[in-house]
Amino acid sequence: MSGPSARADLTARAERADLADPLAGIRDRFDLDDGVVYLDGNSLGALPRSVPARVAEVVGVQWGRMRIRSWTECGWWEAPERIGDRIAPLVGAPPGHVVVGDSTSVNVFRAVVSALRMTPGRNEVLVDATSFPTDGYLAASAARLAGATLRAVQPDRVPDEVGDDTAAVLLNHVDYRTGRLWDMGALTASAHSAGARVVWDLSHSAGTLPVQLDRHRVDFAVGCTYKYLNGGPGAPAYFFVRPDLLSGLDQPLPGWCSHDDPFGMEPGYRPAAGITKARTGTPEIISLLALDAALDAWDGVDIEQVRAKSLALTDFFLDCVHRLVPAGVVTNRTPTDQWRGSQVSLSCADAATVMKSLIARGVVGDHRPPDVLRFGFAPLYTRFADALRAAETLAGVLAE
Amino acid sequence: MSGPSARADLTARAERADLADPLAGIRDRFDLDDGVVYLDGNSLGALPRSVPARVAEVVGVQWGRMRIRSWTECGWWEAPERIGDRIAPLVGAPPGHVVVGDSTSVNVFRAVVSALRMTPGRNEVLVDATSFPTDGYLAASAARLAGATLRAVQPDRVPDEVGDDTAAVLLNHVDYRTGRLWDMGALTASAHSAGARVVWDLSHSAGTLPVQLDRHRVDFAVGCTYKYLNGGPGAPAYFFVRPDLLSGLDQPLPGWCSHDDPFGMEPGYRPAAGITKARTGTPEIISLLALDAALDAWDGVDIEQVRAKSLALTDFFLDCVHRLVPAGVVTNRTPTDQWRGSQVSLSCADAATVMKSLIARGVVGDHRPPDVLRFGFAPLYTRFADALRAAETLAGVLAE
Repeated sequence: MSGPSARADLTARAERADLADPLAGIRDRFDLDDGVVYLDGNSLGALPRSVPARVAEVVGVQWGRMRIRSWTECGWWEAPERIGDRIAPLVGAPPGHVVVGDSTSVNVFRAVVSALRMTPGRNEVLVDATSFPTDGYLAASAARLAGATLRAVQPDRVPDEVGDDTAAVLLNHVDYRTGRLWDMGALTASAHSAGARVVWDLSHSAGTLPVQLDRHRVDFAVGCTYKYLNGGPGAPAYFFVRPDLLSGLDQPLPGWCSHDDPFGMEPGYRPAAGITKARTGTPEIISLLALDAALDAWDGVDIEQVRAKSLALTDFFLDCVHRLVPAGVVTNRTPTDQWRGSQVSLSCADAATVMKSLIARGVVGDHRPPDVLRFGFAPLYTRFADALRAAETLAGVLAE
Repeated sequence: MSGPSARADLTARAERADLADPLAGIRDRFDLDDGVVYLDGNSLGALPRSVPARVAEVVGVQWGRMRIRSWTECGWWEAPERIGDRIAPLVGAPPGHVVVGDSTSVNVFRAVVSALRMTPGRNEVLVDATSFPTDGYLAASAARLAGATLRAVQPDRVPDEVGDDTAAVLLNHVDYRTGRLWDMGALTASAHSAGARVVWDLSHSAGTLPVQLDRHRVDFAVGCTYKYLNGGPGAPAYFFVRPDLLSGLDQPLPGWCSHDDPFGMEPGYRPAAGITKARTGTPEIISLLALDAALDAWDGVDIEQVRAKSLALTDFFLDCVHRLVPAGVVTNRTPTDQWRGSQVSLSCADAATVMKSLIARGVVGDHRPPDVLRFGFAPLYTRFADALRAAETLAGVLAE
């Protein structure tokens, strides 16, 4: 089946899937144009409708009228821990073990140095060779400062490469380029069996599937909030440490906000109790509270339904591409089994130009060098009809 | 002269000074209530009127409608350098050598590690014993990671204490507790004569007086933007490095935003040219662009006039206190000569309770333990009449 009958079939399937989608109503929580198919939520999540009024209040009332009183009266001071507790259920962490602040890069540094300090006598850090590059840069800097060495390995080689000298293994849960999902349980167990700590970067998984930090006894995790969590451009990152490791946490950026008595202004550092000890300096309140407002979009959302929709959407998109784009023109780089996140990566010739044409026609994905077209399917606001339109538009661009 | 005649005289002086103030019109650039005397701008600067509409546009239009395109089309990507160039003239830095991002604490860490790496063979960091404590915490962490030692010294002892093993000297330009201003030129020259690098924290001076980083050949400087620069709660900090040291800068938080080709996603780190190499991760855009809008309040402002008004305001306040508060009830902790910033610190019994009473009566300063009342005089929006009202209110509270 191809041509008009294929399109009619796909259109009918998209309609049925959208009608049956238990998350369909969540799309109304976002400010979207129906003229654009936005498939770049894995880079910058769309704006939740709950954000603008909240930010206006933070700026106009909390800063503008209450000023310094807002640190205590509007909960600014404890917002990093409070918002961390809102993210915790999305990543399978217990309350009190996630804190929000700084960038993902800074938190990678914090986690790797902390892991090295927990494994005295070990001097090697393994880093996911397919990692988002900034993770590798910061891990290298952490290793250098700690006198350790860094070695890049493919994630599936970790069980063979981890050894007696391995202090920490830094892994990305989902490969940002291909969308491949790695086995958090098996890789964590493998690192643990060798006596190493693991640091997982959840930037490309959180908000699309049930991340089970607690169940898998993950030591450290970091992640960004501006992708599938829709926290806004450059929204602050988060940091998780395993509950039984928290009391021994010795992190390299101990600032006044992580002090046990921050307003005591003591000359000596004494870490706060709890996850507060993973904070550093004054949080960027406007961005932080924009994230807080954005997380309202998750109220009552079942992450298992998100995962089911994510797999169905990406399956459907791949099927549309398969039917509408002539064989051999694009190559799918994303696993078609369950070991994938919520994106589809396709390779083709002139990928940069193809993506420009797609964007000009209202289908927004992104290009990653050399030849990858990335399409992110944020399950909270992407419809099956959007997946079909993206594939149709791609077929049109490639046919020219 | 005391009692009614003293008040009449002080009122007349305040009126004359406000009428003659060349900066009087700048107050209209801020959203203030006339019912409150806000003397905590050294902790959180007041809201500039330019901010709310700009933030609403960043959230609603740039994030909400343009989404990922705003990174290039709205200048998000280069905002840290562009806003750094707006701060540069306020701190006496040439264009291209100030970048905005992260917290002051993180930037202290960045500066101290960088300074240690520039002084091989030297293993000691001197830190201002009267420093804002977070600076000392981060300097200690930097020293520990670099295998150096840390020693706290009074700033005026630096010429005697700096030696052949001193790698870096971290100093606060203005003591947050007493308001004392240290001699940047002399202390920098003293450190340099011993072969050490200096790191100045400008958090309590920038925006109140002409800081002359370039003239004094300062090596590194950091500072916060939410005090006298009015950038908003937790607004991102800035980092300066001396132009001739930039090419040799080897900073400990090398993230993707400081890479020479950030979208090349190269596995190896190559620092960008210019001050961009001092960036780390994705900037918190909403807070960052709120700061950008806030800096409009400085358009056309002459920093020499700011300094003159700052000294006149604090002199007048001290004179009002001297005349209205009975002798011996409060003790002034702030130098009365030119070696002070834009705050007045008074000690008294029950300081915490006194400050609570002042705030309840609409005079907002803050309390720093054990016994200090701090009154910050932000010259852009504080009037001589405010200084008088604060002193009158203080006299009233203390009389009870």
